[in-house]
Amino acid sequence: MAFVVLLRNCLRLCVLASDSLGLVAVNKADLSEVYRGYIACLNQQDWSRLDRFVDEKVSRNGQEIRLSGYREMLERDFSEIPDLHFNIQLVISDPPYLASRLLFDCTPKGMFLGLPVNGKRVSFTENVFYEFREGKIAQVWSVVDKAAIEAQL
Amino acid sequence: MAFVVLLRNCLRLCVLASDSLGLVAVNKADLSEVYRGYIACLNQQDWSRLDRFVDEKVSRNGQEIRLSGYREMLERDFSEIPDLHFNIQLVISDPPYLASRLLFDCTPKGMFLGLPVNGKRVSFTENVFYEFREGKIAQVWSVVDKAAIEAQL
Repeated sequence: MAFVVLLRNCLRLCVLASDSLGLVAVNKADLSEVYRGYIACLNQQDWSRLDRFVDEKVSRNGQEIRLSGYREMLERDFSEIPDLHFNIQLVISDPPYLASRLLFDCTPKGMFLGLPVNGKRVSFTENVFYEFREGKIAQVWSVVDKAAIEAQL
Repeated sequence: MAFVVLLRNCLRLCVLASDSLGLVAVNKADLSEVYRGYIACLNQQDWSRLDRFVDEKVSRNGQEIRLSGYREMLERDFSEIPDLHFNIQLVISDPPYLASRLLFDCTPKGMFLGLPVNGKRVSFTENVFYEFREGKIAQVWSVVDKAAIEAQL
């Protein structure tokens, strides 16, 4: 019993030391890095590379839309919002999960989320959660702040 | 230089060993535990204990509403939605940040988020991010899925 306590205390010290050297955070940092690569891919509209970041069987808000459906959704977003740009405000990484608060400042051409934006510039956020599987996004749970857009029209 | 490499490798081994014993996760688990205590406090409407979880100078979506304003907001929510209950679907803990996907299945009496719900039972989610300071919620960034409620009316 005393040995187990000693071992636990030794390990705690090692964890504290390694944490201060940034070693514990490797996985967390890796996932954040993959995520930043994914967001860069979206902003470049580099759809040929999307499969490096998104799983073939990806689900969004509980519905399996697969990679092809995911790409179509993103292409439609950029078609409806020509100046669309994803800005990361906050990333919370807890592998295999990651949460991100995204900030948008853009000009949807016509209707957007059922609202007649019609070329007005609007700012809004999206709070979005991801589950990664083998380094790729497998599940997405997203909520866009529609009320904030309404308030600007 | 060789000593540093040796030290780093020793620490890596310690981290792996301690991770398998669940020691690395202590802080993350602690924060999740505090958060679950906060949600239990809300569901019990135990407002006298709210200051154990929420910082005096709390901000919500960038606006400092302070503990008193936070309590008023929650009391108003429970007044407008008598069967309100917070259900945690997913917690992502990355101290000092925590993200949570909350699920609601409830019956707002009249208007809710500007929508005429008028006693209809609705299901919706909230994706919410928190920043903790000394174990208490200091900042909140929340997005409620208003579009999901609209689709049910």
